[in-house]
Amino acid sequence: MKKKERSSSSLTTAKRAFVKAAGSAIKVPFKEIKLTTGEKVLLYDTSGPYLDGDPAVIPPVRKKWIASRKAARPTQMHFAKKGIVTEEMRFAAVREGVEPEFLRKEVAAGRAIIPANINHPEAEPMVIGGKFLVKINANIGSSALVLDEKNELRKMKTAVRAGADTVMDLSTGGDLRKIRESILRASPVPVGTVPMYEAFERAERSVLKLSWELYRDVLIEQAEQGVDYFTIHAGILRAHLPKALKRKAGIVSRGGSIMASWMCAHNRENFLYANWDEILDILSRYDAAVSIGDGLRPGCIADANDAAQFAELRTLGGLTKLAWKNDVQVMIEGPGHVPLNLIEENMVLEKKLCHGAPFYTLGPLVTDIGAGRDHITSAIGGALIAGFGASMICYVTPREHLGLPTLRDVEEGIYTHKLAAHAADLARGNRMALKWDEAMADARASMRWHDQFALSLEPELSLRTFAESGGVADEKEPYCTMCGPDYCAMRISKKLKEKGPGKRQISKPRNNRPS
Amino acid sequence: MKKKERSSSSLTTAKRAFVKAAGSAIKVPFKEIKLTTGEKVLLYDTSGPYLDGDPAVIPPVRKKWIASRKAARPTQMHFAKKGIVTEEMRFAAVREGVEPEFLRKEVAAGRAIIPANINHPEAEPMVIGGKFLVKINANIGSSALVLDEKNELRKMKTAVRAGADTVMDLSTGGDLRKIRESILRASPVPVGTVPMYEAFERAERSVLKLSWELYRDVLIEQAEQGVDYFTIHAGILRAHLPKALKRKAGIVSRGGSIMASWMCAHNRENFLYANWDEILDILSRYDAAVSIGDGLRPGCIADANDAAQFAELRTLGGLTKLAWKNDVQVMIEGPGHVPLNLIEENMVLEKKLCHGAPFYTLGPLVTDIGAGRDHITSAIGGALIAGFGASMICYVTPREHLGLPTLRDVEEGIYTHKLAAHAADLARGNRMALKWDEAMADARASMRWHDQFALSLEPELSLRTFAESGGVADEKEPYCTMCGPDYCAMRISKKLKEKGPGKRQISKPRNNRPS
Repeated sequence: MKKKERSSSSLTTAKRAFVKAAGSAIKVPFKEIKLTTGEKVLLYDTSGPYLDGDPAVIPPVRKKWIASRKAARPTQMHFAKKGIVTEEMRFAAVREGVEPEFLRKEVAAGRAIIPANINHPEAEPMVIGGKFLVKINANIGSSALVLDEKNELRKMKTAVRAGADTVMDLSTGGDLRKIRESILRASPVPVGTVPMYEAFERAERSVLKLSWELYRDVLIEQAEQGVDYFTIHAGILRAHLPKALKRKAGIVSRGGSIMASWMCAHNRENFLYANWDEILDILSRYDAAVSIGDGLRPGCIADANDAAQFAELRTLGGLTKLAWKNDVQVMIEGPGHVPLNLIEENMVLEKKLCHGAPFYTLGPLVTDIGAGRDHITSAIGGALIAGFGASMICYVTPREHLGLPTLRDVEEGIYTHKLAAHAADLARGNRMALKWDEAMADARASMRWHDQFALSLEPELSLRTFAESGGVADEKEPYCTMCGPDYCAMRISKKLKEKGPGKRQISKPRNNRPS
Repeated sequence: MKKKERSSSSLTTAKRAFVKAAGSAIKVPFKEIKLTTGEKVLLYDTSGPYLDGDPAVIPPVRKKWIASRKAARPTQMHFAKKGIVTEEMRFAAVREGVEPEFLRKEVAAGRAIIPANINHPEAEPMVIGGKFLVKINANIGSSALVLDEKNELRKMKTAVRAGADTVMDLSTGGDLRKIRESILRASPVPVGTVPMYEAFERAERSVLKLSWELYRDVLIEQAEQGVDYFTIHAGILRAHLPKALKRKAGIVSRGGSIMASWMCAHNRENFLYANWDEILDILSRYDAAVSIGDGLRPGCIADANDAAQFAELRTLGGLTKLAWKNDVQVMIEGPGHVPLNLIEENMVLEKKLCHGAPFYTLGPLVTDIGAGRDHITSAIGGALIAGFGASMICYVTPREHLGLPTLRDVEEGIYTHKLAAHAADLARGNRMALKWDEAMADARASMRWHDQFALSLEPELSLRTFAESGGVADEKEPYCTMCGPDYCAMRISKKLKEKGPGKRQISKPRNNRPS
C-alpha cells in the first residue's frame, strides 16, 4: 500500500531538473513535471537526492563554499550586512524565483534567515521569511516511550519526500547524539533541535541537577555537529510565572515548563536569558540560527492572546535585537491554541514587538476539541496566520495531544500543512504558487486527467482515488467522474466555449425582472 | 473496524437527553456527556433517534404542530412576520440556547431560515442563520456510474450520526423518487435537492427536451414528497454567459451548465428566472425553502470574485426580495474556489447584495491543487467564511474532483467540516461552543483522559489513537503520551500550580536585560 503510493509508474513521472544560477556554477534542483501538452512545469522541491532514489550518503553541496570563507562570525547575516551575496543566497534565490540582491537585503534586515550551520554542508540552502514561500517544519524524534533510532531516520526521509522544508529532531530517548548524527548526515533540509532536552537528560531529568554549564556544553556539541537552528526558551522569566500559572492550561511548552520549574526550584532568573550573550557568541561561530521559543504559548482557546503570552513576546523582541547585534539569525516561535478571530493580532504584535523577525508558528490550532484530527485544526490556523505573514508553520499530526507520530502521521501532517502553506502563498500573491494553480485549472478545464494527477500535491493519492471511483482517464470524450458523462459541467461548459454562447444571447431578457 | 468506531463501550457513554422548552410540552434532544467529575455537558446533536439506535421508522415530531395550523402560505417566515412563535421556533431556540423571540425576529427579517416542509414531519426543527451555530450540509446521491439505492440511505444515516445538520440528495441515477422517499422518511434533519437533475433525467438528458412545464411538475412532486429546501439556479442569465465562458474554468455548476446550454440551445432567458413567481407560489404552499444556486461559482482560483460571479450574485439579491414578498425562506449559495485573501469580499458582498439572507457556501476551496485531500482545502476556506458570517457550509469530501463519496468519505468530510464550523463558532463568540472548549481545556489541564476522549469531536478516534500510542488513561500520576512522564509539561505545570511559583519569584531579575 505504502509502496504503491511511492511508485509513480502509472503517472506522468516527475524528475529532478536543475536550474543554473545566473553568473555562477550553482545548480538548483526542482521537481519537473512534463505535461501531456509537452509543456514543463517546475515545482519547488525539498527532497534533494531522495526525489528519485535512496542514496546511503548525500553530497555535501555547501562544502566548498564554506571552506572558501574566512570569518570569525561566518553567519549569512554577517555577509548580508556587508553586502556580500553568498552562494547560499544565490541558491535560495533561484529556488524562490527572486533576485539574489533582494534576498540579501531581507537577510541583512533580519526579515529572513537562511538556516545553514557551517558543519551541515549536506543541507540545500533555503530561506525563511515573510516575502518568500511559506515553509513548513516537521517534528520527529524519539521519547522514553517510543524509542527506535532507525525509525527516526526513516521519518526524516519520509518528511523531506513529502515536502518538509525543515525537520526538528526532538528526541528525548535513546542515544540522542547518535540519532541526531544519522539525521544530520542524511538530511538535505536544515535540522533544528531543542538543546534543553539533551541537557535535561544529562541532568537525569532533575531540575535540581540542571545548570547553565551543563546546557552550554550540550549547545556547543550540537552546534559542532551541524544543527542549523536551536529552539531556546530564553524569554520565559520569573516575572511571567504568576500570570502563566493563573491560566486554564498553564504552561504547555516542554522547554518552558522545565525552565519554569528550574526557576522556582533555584529561585533564580532563567539561565538562558541571563547568559544570552554567551549563547549568541556560540551560535555566531557556527552560523546556527536561533528560534526563540515561546515557553508561554497558550495551550487552549481560553488562554489565547493573554498577558503571559504577550509579556513573553515583548521579551523575545529584546533578545532579537541583541542577536542581530551579534549577526545571529533569528526566528520567533508562536502559538499554540488560538481562535480564528485572535490570529491576526498575533502576527501584528510579533512583527511590531520583534522588529520583523520571521514568525514560526505551531499551527495555531483553532479549537481544543479536535484530538485525533488536530492536523486539520492546525492547518486552518496555519493557513490563516501564514496568509497574514508568518514565514514557517510547524506541522501538527493526527496524533497531536495523544502520542508520537508514526510514519503515516508524518505524511498526513506534512501534506495537510503543505496545502495550508500553499493556500497562504496564493493569498500572498506568490507568482510561483499562482502558476501552479493555473496549470491545474487549465488541465481541469480541458479534462487532461493525467496532467491533473501529476499537478496535484499528491499525484499517487489523486490517481488512486480516481481509479477507485471508476474513473477512466483516457476516454475519447473525457468527463468528470463525479457527475457521469451527461452531467459533466466541465464537458458542457467546454462545448459551449467551443461553439460559443450564440449570437443573440446577449440581447435583453424578454421580461423585466429585478437584477 | 468501522464497527469498532461506532461502539463506545470503552468510553464515558454519551446518551440522548431532553431539555423542555419553557412554557410548552416541547422536548429537545441533546447529546449528554457525563464527566468523571460528575459534571454533565450537553452538546448540540443532529442524529435524532440514531444516536443510540437504528430504528426502522422515526417519529414524526412535527405532525401535530403542522396539523394544528391553518394558512394558505404556512411558511415559518409567514408566521414569524405575524409575530407568531411556532413550535419549530421554540424547538430550534432551545437547541441554540437563545430566546424564541430573538429567533422569530431573525426569521421574520429573512436573516435566518427554518427549513421545514409541512410534508416532512420527521425532521427535527433547526435554524440556519448568521447569528446561530454554523451548520454543515452533506451531499449524498447516486449517479449513472454509482448506483445503489440502499447505500444512499446508509450514507444519510452515517451523515447525521457524524453530525450533518442537513443532507442534500443529489441523485441522478436509479429510481430517483424511491431513493428520495427512503431518505426523507428516515431523516431527522432537513433534506435538500436540486430538482433540475430529475427534470433533466425526464428530458432524457437533452436540453432540447427540457422545459419549464417539465421542471414545474418535478418541483411540485418533490415539494409534495417533503423536500425541505431546493437549490434553484434562477440567477444565471443569458447576459452573464459571455463573461462566464471567457473564464479559465468556465461553468462548473451542474445545474448552471445545464441551464446555460438550455439558454444557448433555445436562445431564451433562464426559465427559472422567467417563472420565478410561479416557483415561489409552489414553495410557499409547502414551506419549502429556496437555496438560490450560484451557477457561476468560480471553479478555480483564477476565476474567483470575477465579473460573472458577482453579476449573478446581484441577480440573486433581486430574486431574494421577491421570495420574501411571498414569505418564502431563502438561502444564497456561494463559492467555490476562492483564495484566502478574497474570501471576506464574498461574505461582505453577499450580505449587501442579498439583504442579509443566510449564506450557504461550498467550501470555499482555497487552492486548486488539493485533489485527494480537498476536504481540507475546503475546511480551511469554510472556517474562514463562516468566521466572517456564513450560516452553513457544504462539506467537501476527499473524493471531490475525482468521484462520488463512499461511506468513509462522508464521515471524513463531515468531521473535517464540523471542526471548521466549530472553529468559526468560537470566533463568533458562541457561548455553547466556548463552553465545550473550556470543558476540554479543564479535562486536559487536570489530565482527565477519559473526559478528554468523551469531549473530543470524535471520542472513538481519539481513544483509539491514544491507545495505539501506548497511552494509559488510569495512571495514578497521569502524564501526556507525547512526552513521557518526566517531560510532561502539563504535569510539571500542574505541580507548579499546586505548590505555587514560590514567594520570591516575582522579585526583580538580578541582571538587567532588555524586556
